Amino acid sequence: MREIEGGVTAARGYKASGIACGIKKEVKDLALIFSDALATAAGLFTQNKVKAAPVLLSQRHIKSGRARAIIANSGNANCCTGKSGFLNALAMAQEAARHLSIPTEEVLVASTGVIGAKLPIENIKRAIPALVGKLDARGSSEAADAIMTTDKFQKTCALQYQAEGGIIKIGGIAKGAGMICPKMATMLAFITTDAAIEAAILREALARATAKSFNIISVDGEMSTNDTVLCLANGLSGAGAITGRGKELDDFQTALDNVCQKLARLMVEDGEGATKFITITVKNAATELDAINAAYAVAKSPLVKTAFHGGDPNWGRIMSALGGSGAQINPELISIRFSGVEVARGGSYLDEPWGKAAADALGQKEIEVSVDLNIGDKSASVWTTDLSEEYVRINSKYTT
Amino acid sequence: MREIEGGVTAARGYKASGIACGIKKEVKDLALIFSDALATAAGLFTQNKVKAAPVLLSQRHIKSGRARAIIANSGNANCCTGKSGFLNALAMAQEAARHLSIPTEEVLVASTGVIGAKLPIENIKRAIPALVGKLDARGSSEAADAIMTTDKFQKTCALQYQAEGGIIKIGGIAKGAGMICPKMATMLAFITTDAAIEAAILREALARATAKSFNIISVDGEMSTNDTVLCLANGLSGAGAITGRGKELDDFQTALDNVCQKLARLMVEDGEGATKFITITVKNAATELDAINAAYAVAKSPLVKTAFHGGDPNWGRIMSALGGSGAQINPELISIRFSGVEVARGGSYLDEPWGKAAADALGQKEIEVSVDLNIGDKSASVWTTDLSEEYVRINSKYTT
Repeated sequence: MREIEGGVTAARGYKASGIACGIKKEVKDLALIFSDALATAAGLFTQNKVKAAPVLLSQRHIKSGRARAIIANSGNANCCTGKSGFLNALAMAQEAARHLSIPTEEVLVASTGVIGAKLPIENIKRAIPALVGKLDARGSSEAADAIMTTDKFQKTCALQYQAEGGIIKIGGIAKGAGMICPKMATMLAFITTDAAIEAAILREALARATAKSFNIISVDGEMSTNDTVLCLANGLSGAGAITGRGKELDDFQTALDNVCQKLARLMVEDGEGATKFITITVKNAATELDAINAAYAVAKSPLVKTAFHGGDPNWGRIMSALGGSGAQINPELISIRFSGVEVARGGSYLDEPWGKAAADALGQKEIEVSVDLNIGDKSASVWTTDLSEEYVRINSKYTT
Repeated sequence: MREIEGGVTAARGYKASGIACGIKKEVKDLALIFSDALATAAGLFTQNKVKAAPVLLSQRHIKSGRARAIIANSGNANCCTGKSGFLNALAMAQEAARHLSIPTEEVLVASTGVIGAKLPIENIKRAIPALVGKLDARGSSEAADAIMTTDKFQKTCALQYQAEGGIIKIGGIAKGAGMICPKMATMLAFITTDAAIEAAILREALARATAKSFNIISVDGEMSTNDTVLCLANGLSGAGAITGRGKELDDFQTALDNVCQKLARLMVEDGEGATKFITITVKNAATELDAINAAYAVAKSPLVKTAFHGGDPNWGRIMSALGGSGAQINPELISIRFSGVEVARGGSYLDEPWGKAAADALGQKEIEVSVDLNIGDKSASVWTTDLSEEYVRINSKYTT
């Protein structure tokens, strides 16, 4: 298995494009991904009860387990836009389908940006012929550009591996930045592969990969209305079909996991205002849910995140977050390490001096926080960022 | 009922003092409150599973329903400090009791500051004779100073009202600033009254007052390890005893509510980095818990709070927070108002322009956010602040 170039068009039979249609000022804001052949398709969507119109539409279209195109815009979430918002999402799909000469049901739609503003559908419709015209087997970067919002850099990844009968490629693009949280929060990720795989198996594989990637990241604890992970598999690799269990499925799962984890990691690295990449691991919890809740409580705590920003080894704030997490704990059994440096044992401070070593650990760009609850055998990890003044600046003026 | 001067020493028979004992650099960090007569006492404490040593000790001492003194330090939370931390809290009570010539069990203890650092108990012990010597019937301000951490101003309040047989006075001091959250989070509030009231009735009255004040505020969603609300009632007013239900209890409850609400309000106004005072009201929820959860989800959302900071009427972020709150909602029934200006109806944007009016409303120091869920008849309100760069600056370097 090795990394390759090409992102969402790395796999055989995919084209993509991205253009500026005028939702945002003079930057790309409309993306299209197209498969030469009808693909099996799987999707995961936000669990927020307020769901954007494109989420509702894509959930409907993906039920068939098949799709050929994804159209996505940035700059407007088309959420909280009433019935006309749904009709606008449908119009995006219809117009793309018409120019691609495919059924509307084979087009998936995603949007990201400001919630509660009317989608400029005329701009989108007007741009679709050009968007289709620009479809290119090396168009991944254009599409990746067009789905960015406050992202500072493109999120893209692809790899290939040798399978029975041929080489399978898998790649994707994503946008992240703000509202990154458990259960997927404004993030879009579009993944394509030339593997041949049934829709039901693809759906399970995507769910497993997401549980280990997009669902363990948190930038600010927000859960968005628009989060969407889509995966198309068009079977054009020439390799044998992946059916049921076995080595074929294991290899595909590993590749899909890798792509999702790479994209998720890039989202955290580009988290709004982020200056650190922090892994919070909670070990030896009583239950898996306790481990997850405890890890998220630490990852979401503004006091913990600002301390990391300042390089301050304030482990007491971690204890406080654990105590408020709802997880079963015994404070007197807890120990905490920062990148291997033990800073608390038995829920209390250590007499040995660790100040220098801990400060060195927190001065690094990557930090591993390990919390041992010592009351069970379940573990969970979450990836997060620090909280900086920059985060506040970015989000104080986003719509204006 | 009218406001008076005097804070925690406004009521008859109370003295207070505050001095610098050296936990912090050259500022007051040790406070004492003392009642001339044995008082009935009630307390409410943090629900964090990680509880500071002084919380554990005060919970034990207050079981009798009686107390005469409160000793409190700032600069060190005496939390996550193991068995020696508990012995240090006990030593604070013992030393104060010895110099006040009262039983140790009549002394309540509170601490606030850094978690996980050893309490400099020798500094405290050395300072207690001077602290006792300085007790003064006009010492409220000294004590209020000594419990401040990142607070920018003292929080104090007192009032009096005419009761059967005499004038009853009630007053208090508090510290707030960071970690302010539901279920009380690092806040200390000490309230004294010269009313005569049984401990059980006082406890109920304090719980009711807290539910409408300290428990509806959120600065950053953190729940502290040290939160403590204590109330002493020494019966020296000369007014008749407050027993059971009736006008006497109603009047006392109203006065206690007012004092707690004033102190809670001051905490929010002095929230770390706060530039706005925001009331989030959720109306017509299916259940009371739904109303509370929805209001808190909005109050805790960093995206909502940064938008308020920037004066940005980004109501879509409120919809998103409601959708992720766990409360039962129907997005299509929700309407939102900013200080009376309707900005969303039926879960969607309005065609009428409200930009100017909403921007004016958000430009004010006080903002009323009203969310109508339109699916039930339960309501809840929460007080919160905006999220500013200043909050991050304060909390990046707190221990250093």
